[in-house]
Amino acid sequence: MKALEEKILKEGKVYPGNVLKVSNFLNHQIDTVFLKKMCKEIADRYRDSGVNKVLTVESSGIAIAAVVAVMLEVPLVFAKKNKSSNISSDLYLSVVHSYTHNSDFNVCVEKDFLGKEDKILIVDDFLAVGNAVGGLVDIVNQAGAELCGVAVAIEKGFQGGGDELRRQGVRIDSMAIIESMEDGKIVFRKQ
Amino acid sequence: MKALEEKILKEGKVYPGNVLKVSNFLNHQIDTVFLKKMCKEIADRYRDSGVNKVLTVESSGIAIAAVVAVMLEVPLVFAKKNKSSNISSDLYLSVVHSYTHNSDFNVCVEKDFLGKEDKILIVDDFLAVGNAVGGLVDIVNQAGAELCGVAVAIEKGFQGGGDELRRQGVRIDSMAIIESMEDGKIVFRKQ
Repeated sequence: MKALEEKILKEGKVYPGNVLKVSNFLNHQIDTVFLKKMCKEIADRYRDSGVNKVLTVESSGIAIAAVVAVMLEVPLVFAKKNKSSNISSDLYLSVVHSYTHNSDFNVCVEKDFLGKEDKILIVDDFLAVGNAVGGLVDIVNQAGAELCGVAVAIEKGFQGGGDELRRQGVRIDSMAIIESMEDGKIVFRKQ
Repeated sequence: MKALEEKILKEGKVYPGNVLKVSNFLNHQIDTVFLKKMCKEIADRYRDSGVNKVLTVESSGIAIAAVVAVMLEVPLVFAKKNKSSNISSDLYLSVVHSYTHNSDFNVCVEKDFLGKEDKILIVDDFLAVGNAVGGLVDIVNQAGAELCGVAVAIEKGFQGGGDELRRQGVRIDSMAIIESMEDGKIVFRKQ
């Protein structure tokens, strides 16, 4: 999506350790006029896929996932991190390693909200090493649901998570794929 | 909002300790067809208030806040809990006590994203004791921004947070106010 690539170049900031900060328009402050366009692009790609539920994980993917789910008129489920005191024990749970925080956490979804009759679109803001999305794919598999695809705003292609999922046969729709960002110079993969 | 009251009566579950679980339509799984209607009600009430930014706190308020912000065509800022490794040190920070988890946490917003020129609508899913919303009001005040109002889905009126904010002169729009839920019987405040 050309508009996202341009926005990353114009407003994104690259920090040491391959950190791309897009918190001014995507995941701390969100440019909702842009968000709406990007979510429409995602929704249009999946409108005829039979998706009956959107799945994300708290918290920075929720805004994108919510707007996509509103557009597709299907429920949104967001997986929770850790175990909250008012979540039932009847959970799908997957352990995820956070690259950003260098620690493990649980993502969990109540079994009531995913089942083998569901056709799932996973939505998130970032796909890098693929651990968070991998945890969601694991939960979809545990539920016996069908995975229609994974849609993310920004894929860090050089971290390999997206390509690994593609090798496993998962459909991935990344609105922008960063192939490299050495020395602060961002290069996108042609799609 | 009559439709929300009916939904709470039909789909909500009351647990000991005044816990109302609405995770099947509001904050784990989200009924997005209903969400859109509720967010339109909120957006319509604030459309002429000059709001230029919506503020919420991660994570269960993000879906509502995002859809309201999309409808108002203004940016969304969500305050982060704790201090993430890729957030700058230049933050507004407020300490909030969580009634659900019985612990304190920080909510913070980068100073770049709120300033004295801003007219803020705070949006969240719940307003109970008012600690989370109070932390956001504190941050709005720290920024010297103008608070146009607070819109929430469900106010637990008997926990007093909403009325305390009203006494301070804050405009509160609660889509449903629960006056009591003793013995599992939910009674709404007339609005």
